[in-house]
Amino acid sequence: MKAAIIGASGYSGEELVRLLSRHPDVELAAVTSRSLVGKKVADIMPALRHLVGELAFTVSDPAELAQRADLDVFFLALPHGVATEFANPLFTAGKIVIDLSADFRLNSASVYESYYGHPHPAPQLLKAAPYVIPELAGDKWKEANLIACPGCYPTSIQIPLVPLLRAGLVKPSGIVINSYSGVSGAGRKVAEDFIYCERNESIQGYGMPKHRHLSEIEEQLEKAAFADCLVQFNPHLAPMSRGIATTIVAKSNGASLQSVYDCWSQCYQTSPFVSVLPAGTYPDTKHVTGTNRADISAVYDTRTDNFVITSAIDNLLKGASGQAVQILNIKFGFQETAGLS
Amino acid sequence: MKAAIIGASGYSGEELVRLLSRHPDVELAAVTSRSLVGKKVADIMPALRHLVGELAFTVSDPAELAQRADLDVFFLALPHGVATEFANPLFTAGKIVIDLSADFRLNSASVYESYYGHPHPAPQLLKAAPYVIPELAGDKWKEANLIACPGCYPTSIQIPLVPLLRAGLVKPSGIVINSYSGVSGAGRKVAEDFIYCERNESIQGYGMPKHRHLSEIEEQLEKAAFADCLVQFNPHLAPMSRGIATTIVAKSNGASLQSVYDCWSQCYQTSPFVSVLPAGTYPDTKHVTGTNRADISAVYDTRTDNFVITSAIDNLLKGASGQAVQILNIKFGFQETAGLS
Amino acid sequence: MKAAIIGASGYSGEELVRLLSRHPDVELAAVTSRSLVGKKVADIMPALRHLVGELAFTVSDPAELAQRADLDVFFLALPHGVATEFANPLFTAGKIVIDLSADFRLNSASVYESYYGHPHPAPQLLKAAPYVIPELAGDKWKEANLIACPGCYPTSIQIPLVPLLRAGLVKPSGIVINSYSGVSGAGRKVAEDFIYCERNESIQGYGMPKHRHLSEIEEQLEKAAFADCLVQFNPHLAPMSRGIATTIVAKSNGASLQSVYDCWSQCYQTSPFVSVLPAGTYPDTKHVTGTNRADISAVYDTRTDNFVITSAIDNLLKGASGQAVQILNIKFGFQETAGLS
Amino acid sequence: MKAAIIGASGYSGEELVRLLSRHPDVELAAVTSRSLVGKKVADIMPALRHLVGELAFTVSDPAELAQRADLDVFFLALPHGVATEFANPLFTAGKIVIDLSADFRLNSASVYESYYGHPHPAPQLLKAAPYVIPELAGDKWKEANLIACPGCYPTSIQIPLVPLLRAGLVKPSGIVINSYSGVSGAGRKVAEDFIYCERNESIQGYGMPKHRHLSEIEEQLEKAAFADCLVQFNPHLAPMSRGIATTIVAKSNGASLQSVYDCWSQCYQTSPFVSVLPAGTYPDTKHVTGTNRADISAVYDTRTDNFVITSAIDNLLKGASGQAVQILNIKFGFQETAGLS
Repeated sequence: MKAAIIGASGYSGEELVRLLSRHPDVELAAVTSRSLVGKKVADIMPALRHLVGELAFTVSDPAELAQRADLDVFFLALPHGVATEFANPLFTAGKIVIDLSADFRLNSASVYESYYGHPHPAPQLLKAAPYVIPELAGDKWKEANLIACPGCYPTSIQIPLVPLLRAGLVKPSGIVINSYSGVSGAGRKVAEDFIYCERNESIQGYGMPKHRHLSEIEEQLEKAAFADCLVQFNPHLAPMSRGIATTIVAKSNGASLQSVYDCWSQCYQTSPFVSVLPAGTYPDTKHVTGTNRADISAVYDTRTDNFVITSAIDNLLKGASGQAVQILNIKFGFQETAGLS
Repeated sequence: MKAAIIGASGYSGEELVRLLSRHPDVELAAVTSRSLVGKKVADIMPALRHLVGELAFTVSDPAELAQRADLDVFFLALPHGVATEFANPLFTAGKIVIDLSADFRLNSASVYESYYGHPHPAPQLLKAAPYVIPELAGDKWKEANLIACPGCYPTSIQIPLVPLLRAGLVKPSGIVINSYSGVSGAGRKVAEDFIYCERNESIQGYGMPKHRHLSEIEEQLEKAAFADCLVQFNPHLAPMSRGIATTIVAKSNGASLQSVYDCWSQCYQTSPFVSVLPAGTYPDTKHVTGTNRADISAVYDTRTDNFVITSAIDNLLKGASGQAVQILNIKFGFQETAGLS
Repeated sequence: MKAAIIGASGYSGEELVRLLSRHPDVELAAVTSRSLVGKKVADIMPALRHLVGELAFTVSDPAELAQRADLDVFFLALPHGVATEFANPLFTAGKIVIDLSADFRLNSASVYESYYGHPHPAPQLLKAAPYVIPELAGDKWKEANLIACPGCYPTSIQIPLVPLLRAGLVKPSGIVINSYSGVSGAGRKVAEDFIYCERNESIQGYGMPKHRHLSEIEEQLEKAAFADCLVQFNPHLAPMSRGIATTIVAKSNGASLQSVYDCWSQCYQTSPFVSVLPAGTYPDTKHVTGTNRADISAVYDTRTDNFVITSAIDNLLKGASGQAVQILNIKFGFQETAGLS
Repeated sequence: MKAAIIGASGYSGEELVRLLSRHPDVELAAVTSRSLVGKKVADIMPALRHLVGELAFTVSDPAELAQRADLDVFFLALPHGVATEFANPLFTAGKIVIDLSADFRLNSASVYESYYGHPHPAPQLLKAAPYVIPELAGDKWKEANLIACPGCYPTSIQIPLVPLLRAGLVKPSGIVINSYSGVSGAGRKVAEDFIYCERNESIQGYGMPKHRHLSEIEEQLEKAAFADCLVQFNPHLAPMSRGIATTIVAKSNGASLQSVYDCWSQCYQTSPFVSVLPAGTYPDTKHVTGTNRADISAVYDTRTDNFVITSAIDNLLKGASGQAVQILNIKFGFQETAGLS
């Protein structure tokens, strides 16, 4: 199994290099970047010096990559919009593509257009690309050759919430979600807002009330609930490198806290990457950083009849690259945790 | 005007020392601490070396302090429960007391008991002690000799929310509040949960669904709304020393975003310590740290009919010691900003 | 007294705005920036919202500024090289100029050229501009109309070391200096090296063995020692916003630790901004942040005959803008601490 | 191969649990702690929830552990002094012991007494216990059953410096070393000095001029140099969780920078855990965090004839638990990197 990472210059690209270079069943055979061609990976990602040997960045050319007989699977770690330029020819050439961008996460081209401000560049592929949080996506997606890897905020939200909506334990209306992301959530973006002194000692909201991730959150929650599901989603940046902490307020649909925990237990009992914590123990981003785990927990407020649900993931692992490798593992029949513990 | 700080060993005590030692109209005449008697303030609070000269901690004895003819005003920076031991004799002796603890923040002794687990130690004083966020408290409180200084979370919530509830612009039911506090919010508490490596790179909820501050939040919001007001309040710790960022979701009561801003403008147009930021500009804890300012802002979501309101304060200043000095300034007719800019 | 800040868009410019807008004896009458003309200061520096009212950035034109009869003193917070473009016409027009750049810190134009890679743009001004750490510079500089404000690293080094070299207590040869600076030391520079995730959890050296500040360090130490003084200066970046911690190893010249402390006591006994800490108490950047203070301390190692001297300053205050205001205060006969406590 | 970790409640104990629970050739069969007996490891170390299953802490009884036929190798993650209480009976019982404390790092019992303030509790074992940085320790130590794992600061110093002293490239006298450690270097110590708000935004020296690690540093450097070697060692705490950055100034012994690099290349060419970076590229703690790597680099200053050598390690991995596992791997003939990549 030979893998390529396309557009590996960002933080999730770097995590993919880390994971795949240690993966027992995969050979990391190519790492591409338009801006870094010819440079050694060890020089660009010094944290990985001991893992990458003499590996160097190669050219990112979609047509050429589609012809490479020696590459089996392609991870796209590209900006939205750009990913389609690669996904399209690679998919057509019969390659397997795991896309970490937002390009194939939505079912609806019109929702895409309303959130991204331009028509979807390849709407015919939207149907071909299942949206896969492995713990929630069932089995059919394993047939697909183009797979959409969910966003970081959406993963932190869906893992606790989707089972409860499917089971009808919480009401689909009136859900309020607050999320706090480490600064790597903005990628390796060089802008004044992201320099150290601007983010240190700072918590600040942004992108309210209609962050782009909201489109994929609502589409998925509505599928789970078989009902309309308008959520209030409030993203914030927090002064840490990694991690997302999400706090969800959802009205009980006549369900008890015990039934929430029973639902989670049943859904996640064999999942190696979801930890259900007892009520009153709160997930902590620090405890999941560097892992592919999602920690989830809930309390019930008798006064308001609300559940308050908290979750924590590493935005670059379970929220991006770790989940992408987990998808690879399942699709190819490797151990689900291969390269991820 | 001679002031004493009782129980000055914590972080809000330290801020009081900083503020009062620079205050143009006040002499900081005594600083007491049971555990630090005889020690020089400059040695215990090295950040204040240039401000405090040879000032030393003296004994904390309520009866003796009540006899001190040379002290006019007492700031109590004590744990809840302990504050009453001082407030009671000082108040009886005719002293002016500004209490930063939770002891006199509630009107209802039974609510106190349900949140703090024991009967209120001096319920007769609850009526004597107005609860004062100066921007919201009107004028009558200036007569009082015992004043309850609000908590940090409650201040960050009430400044944006109370005017809107009073004006009937948002619905009092279904309000959801998430707050993120710097670690100084836990005080100078020496416990494993608060050592550096446990809090660094960590966001974690706690105290849900019924944090003690909820009692004072709901009591005040209900007063503002003339209606029941059960809120979902989700506090969290964030990896920074100071600051509280609060995000409030409240349903519009048929009001527009413009009417929210008009309401705030009217309420705060002469307030030196409230900055109303335009919609789409988000308050940032970093911008208020070291100041007595509250920054507030709002957006409106047409999809959900919710306002999403964000605020930021310095938990130790506008959320504690700065507000206490502001109260002092107003009560004694000093310039409201004296010692606070 | 009306002051202007030229090039106020960086962090030391922002600190100047903060200090001068609160200064009891100065009116901040103009703030200029080429890139920010017309913008409100409150929008660009949101931390100062409560201080700056409607003040807006105006044009940075050297010739025009030199004609302004209403401006008495100019603070130049400009990159090196650019400062001269303003200092020259302003000085010629008889204005008072306090320059925070490196342009006038050296006496020797040839040393300047060897460190900065090009000839000095106005070598005739080098003689006119005294180099002023007020605690060390004596009195004659007060006559000057162009004053060079020292760098941050050099201030943290000279305050403890210069008195000892002048008194002959330490040997001028073999001195080793390590300094650790908060990231604001790099200014508001937008570059990949300075984004949050690259600096968080990182300590890294840079610019060794010949950082530009070395030129001014050595020139000043040699003046103090009346001898050659080649020092090993190792600057590093540390994961914090502000502060410089410096550790100096210098060989005793037959002197005792007591004589070091006696020397410092004599030199700094009336200095409001230097705190001499007892041996075994170590200066901490956190204790000086937000102040114009330098904390200094020393231990003696009988095994090596070395003194190990530690100091801490706020790089943006005593290391830049605070020191500039201190210079202003002394030059104009204001209280030395005016606007600085 | 069954391993036990004795005293696993601290941060290096936690790292050992992490490493050994993933190690391909070792079964982590027991984890002991006096204070945590009966508690589940997953509850005490929530970051390891996915790795430790139902493992629980058992009793720490030296005599009983010495009788356990099912345990092959013991890692002692205990305070100095306490480690001997276990090492002695385990060693006598023929067990293999890898000690992470300071108890067996020195050859000289009298040096131990002068640094630790009491006689060594088992001086006869000092000879039995080799001091092992695997890259520097040769082969003979593999016979030993009691192995002293070096300290974090000493490892960061010896890896770059020992080869140069052995080769005579730098002078053994006049060496000055500054080290900056993340707060985990103090262990999971609950004390006011280590709470978040005291260490955040703080760089501060401590323990000068005679930190306990100095004893082992000098003993080892003198062995390398065959000469007296009094070093000035200045440790500091930095506001980060993990990592040590060390900067060494050493006089050239007539050697060129090229010869330094040649020496390192020869010494470390087959070492999987030492990266030699080109002159002008500076090791960064952030690049080694989470790895067992040491990054080293040097520049030469023609003005002073000094080399300035910088290194970075993760204090809990190459500086403690990672190195201990590396020792295990080599002693038992496993791949040197097993469980460490």
